Order: sequence, then C-alpha cells, then structure tokens
Amino acid sequence: MNKHYKIGLFGFGTVGQGFYENLKKHPHLPASIEKVCVKRVDLPRIGHELYFTDNPDELIHDPALDIIIELIDDAAAAKKYVHTALQNGKSVISANKKMIGESLEEVDQWHNEFDATFLYEAAVGGGIPIVHAVDGFFRDQEVLKIRGILNGSSNYILTQMQQYQWSFEQALSDAQAQGFAERNPTLDISGIDATYKLSILAYHAFGEVPSLNSFSAESIESVTKEEIKKARAKGRKIKPVATIERLGNEIVCSVRPELVDPNDALYSVDSENNAISVDTVISGKHTSVGKGAGSLPTGSAVLEDLKRLLSGYSYEVSKTKTAVA
Amino acid sequence: MNKHYKIGLFGFGTVGQGFYENLKKHPHLPASIEKVCVKRVDLPRIGHELYFTDNPDELIHDPALDIIIELIDDAAAAKKYVHTALQNGKSVISANKKMIGESLEEVDQWHNEFDATFLYEAAVGGGIPIVHAVDGFFRDQEVLKIRGILNGSSNYILTQMQQYQWSFEQALSDAQAQGFAERNPTLDISGIDATYKLSILAYHAFGEVPSLNSFSAESIESVTKEEIKKARAKGRKIKPVATIERLGNEIVCSVRPELVDPNDALYSVDSENNAISVDTVISGKHTSVGKGAGSLPTGSAVLEDLKRLLSGYSYEVSKTKTAVA
Repeated sequence: MNKHYKIGLFGFGTVGQGFYENLKKHPHLPASIEKVCVKRVDLPRIGHELYFTDNPDELIHDPALDIIIELIDDAAAAKKYVHTALQNGKSVISANKKMIGESLEEVDQWHNEFDATFLYEAAVGGGIPIVHAVDGFFRDQEVLKIRGILNGSSNYILTQMQQYQWSFEQALSDAQAQGFAERNPTLDISGIDATYKLSILAYHAFGEVPSLNSFSAESIESVTKEEIKKARAKGRKIKPVATIERLGNEIVCSVRPELVDPNDALYSVDSENNAISVDTVISGKHTSVGKGAGSLPTGSAVLEDLKRLLSGYSYEVSKTKTAVA
Repeated sequence: MNKHYKIGLFGFGTVGQGFYENLKKHPHLPASIEKVCVKRVDLPRIGHELYFTDNPDELIHDPALDIIIELIDDAAAAKKYVHTALQNGKSVISANKKMIGESLEEVDQWHNEFDATFLYEAAVGGGIPIVHAVDGFFRDQEVLKIRGILNGSSNYILTQMQQYQWSFEQALSDAQAQGFAERNPTLDISGIDATYKLSILAYHAFGEVPSLNSFSAESIESVTKEEIKKARAKGRKIKPVATIERLGNEIVCSVRPELVDPNDALYSVDSENNAISVDTVISGKHTSVGKGAGSLPTGSAVLEDLKRLLSGYSYEVSKTKTAVA
C-alpha cells in the first residue's frame, strides 16, 4: 500500500496539539494533517505549516480528505461532524467521551451502517489502551464486570484530601489551580463523566448498547475530612470507583466514593491516575493503570487509533453483530 | 478475503488444549487445526476429530499448512520447528519463552529475514496482553523501565508464606501439590524464567536485542519466615520483582525478592497473578495485572495472536529496523 492518507483535524487544543506532536515523531506513517478546523483562525499557534480554517464544511465535505480526527469539546457539533464524515465515506477518530457515551445507539448504527471505520480509544482512560482491548481480547474472555477509577480529577481531589487532610473545597480549588480539574467540575465530581466512559466500555465488553436502567451516581462532594481520616487510620483510602456489570438481563452501573483496602488493585492508584479492572470468565481479573488524561497521553491514544486505522483495523463489536444477524 | 487458513499444531498439553477449546468458540474465524504433532499418538485425548501424528516433518514440510502453532516444552526442538516453518514461508505462533528469550538474536533475524510472521504473545504474562502493547503503543511512548511480577509460581509461594506463616519449603510443596509450581521448580524460583520474559519485553520495548551484561538474579529460596513476618508487621509484602531498564548504553536487569509497600502497584498482586509496569516518557507509568499462566488464559493469548495474524498484523520491531537500515 503506497497510498498516502490525508487528515482533516477538528480542534487544536491540548489533545489536538498532543496528537500533532506525536504524529511528527512518526514520519514513516503514510498520513499527514491537511486541514485543521478551529473556532478562531487568528490565534497564534504552534503548527505554522498547517492550514487552518473555521469552516467545518471545508473538512467534512472535502473529497480529498480520507480521515477526520475530531478533538473538540462541543459534543453536539462533534456528533454532526462525525456523522456527516462517516456518511461521506471518511474514517473517523474521536476522543469525545460525552458525545459517544450519550449516543451509543447511534454509534452502534454507524458501526453497522457505514463502511468507514470509527475509532475512539482516547475517549476512555486517556493513555490506557483499553477500548480495543475490551472490544477484542477481553470480550473473548467473557466479561463479567468492569470496575475502575475513570475520572482523574476526582481521584486527584480525594488523593489530596487524604495527603494533606484538606476539605473537599480546599482540594477542589487546588486541583483547579493545578489544572487537574475544570473551572466547572460538575461532570467530573458528580460521576457523570465516568458514566460516559463506563457505557462505552460496556458496549464493547458486552457487545450491545447498555440500557442504564439501573444506574446510580454519588458525587465525591459528600466525602468529608473526617471520613478520610477514619479510613486512613484503618489503612484504607476512599477512591472514586465506577462499576458496571451484567446481572442477568440487566446492566447495573454505579459511580461513587468507596473504601478500598491495600489488597485492592485500586488502592495504589493515586493522584490523576486512572485504572480499569476487567473481570473475565476465562482469565480472571486484569487491571490496567495509567494516566487517564493529558495532552501527550491522550494525543498518543489518538495516534494509536490512526495506526490501527491505517492497518485496516476496526472494532469487532459491529462485525459480531453482523455475524449474528 | 475468503481464504481459509490451515493450522499445524505442535503440542497438545494444557496450553494446546486451552487454544483448541478457545478456537472452538470462534467458528467464524477462517482457520482450523488440520494436524497436531504430539510425542505419543496412542494416548487418549480430547479432540477426537483431529489428525494426530508424531512426525514433525508432516507439519513443517506440508505445503498445505499456512500457520504453525508451537506449544511444546522442549526449547531446542521448538526452535528447529519454528525456524524451518518460517523458512518454508509459514507464519508461526509460539508460547515458548525459554526458546525465544534465549534466542533473541536469531528471533530478530527471523523477523527481518522472512516474510512470514512470527508472534508470541503467550510467551510473556500468559493472559496479559503485553507483548504487542510493548511492541507498539508503549514503544511509541519511549519506554524507560519495565518492572513487574513475571513468575506466578514464585508469587504464589511468597503469598502463601505470608498468609500462613509457612517456611519456603512448606510453601513450595504446597504450590507443587496445587499445580502452581513444577516438580523441578529451579527455573521459576531462581528468577531465570522471569529473565526470559524480561528479555523478550526489553527487545520489543527498546527495539533492539538486549545484551544482558549487567544482570543479576536472586532466588526466592533465601526468603525466610522471619523476614516475611517482619515485612508484614510493617504493612509490607515481599514480592518476586523483575526489573529491566536502559541506563545510557547499558541495559540493566535484575530479578529478586523485594519489599513493597501498599502504594506500590505490585502490593495487591497476590497468588499466581502476574503484573507488568511500563514506565514511559510520554504517558508515565502503566501497570497491567492478570493471570500469568494457565490453560485457558494462555490458550486465549495464542488465539489473540491467531486473530492478529489473520488480520495481517506483525510486530513493529522488525519494520522499524528495516526503516532505519
């Protein structure tokens, strides 16, 4: 294959720049960024050699582009661009957990309806290579349960509370100052962000769109200094734990602060790190730990997807459905 | 691609049978076992529909076979079969850590010399999907260090010593009775087995065959009841830790019993479980935990390799070298 692939990139924030930096380190890859769509083309940026535009149509309707990489915040706009690009026969890579987690029914249709491939490793666990692992290796092992720490901001806040005996409010402002929490941290601390990621993992693990009819989320906001102190005295930690499992026909999902002891794989997962444990029938429990966010880790997860795309890879979840149908 | 791939299988022990059972669960895969080479064809076995032979030439020289899967104990024989099969243009999957770990110079030649693909996910970490991850994703992140528990027998013995205050000898006989240690456990408890696996990981992580000029292995045999008791009193555990890192031009490798505290990701890795932590420049530390051995986990790692092979995957380590040369 000597084809050279042309990429249209939506968004040039931290993840977009991380991807750009990572791609530069792989000059042998037969792919290059041809156009970048941003909100404001007049801002000074790295990547002077790139062509910037503020018109999305210049990307999604350009027949010369083979691949669209969507790395913007706005979930509604992202969904429109991704859908149109797939319709136009372009393969798409996205890191948009909110858009994908909220639209799994449609994502499932896209996988089955369009020939073009849609990948989104970077939407879950940042630098932890988990989506394709759950989609292939772990699903073959028959997944029973997924449990983990899927939100770095929440974990960072609880870790700081324990380390410095801070209140939730103190730890939150510190996390915001350090860049580990957003100015509006609601999605993170409420557990909603973790739920998006759980849903995506469950879809690939169980091979069907989970209907979250049994769902609970408890904010870490309710965790007090005293509770953390008590846990610490017993050699335990409080962690933001997300769990999803299939019980009969029901998929049960919860996100909440939980006491964990040192023999729990999540105990040693501190600060902004994420962890994902997958319990399987065949090979027991697997745990993966790593940075769940950040420019370069997430950017390199996007690059991994690009490499997979170029090698002809696509998720098995759709193929399985076709085979069954 | 409607081609159906014909497999010649060497060995039908626990891993071979685990692979056979796993493959049966994937009837959609365009591959089937055509011939099985075993030492004794007269033994009663599962797999009555299979064709058994005791003549290796019937497999490695059969032009009708596309893929050879090598799952025997004898490293010298395995090496001969694998090499000849690759020479004959057959792709090969192996789980033979000893053969591969001892012959990395030649394995590296094979990757570069032959068009046929050679994969060996099951040689390291059993059910933990690590070789291809280190070969691709982690190498892109620039690996600094690999540290882990790579020998399930040693971990099982030390875990039992701590749990029941047993001596090494007591724990070893128990592990042998439970099937978690071999009758001749030297390779496991001495650290040599872990060294094979470390070398394989280092080859894929650093992109070159490591010359282990700075190598140390300390047997867990020297660990006493008293040391374990003392560690436990301090809230710590003694674990069989394998470490490899590049320091300048040198690759330093050690395998030895180490004190680990609860904030270490290896602390919660008990019994026969394995763990592999990969420290990278770009995305920090990743840890993977899971069953390091066993019929079904290892058999399913072999199946993963088969799926990768069918999708056209091969290790990047060889491609990179070709690109550089």
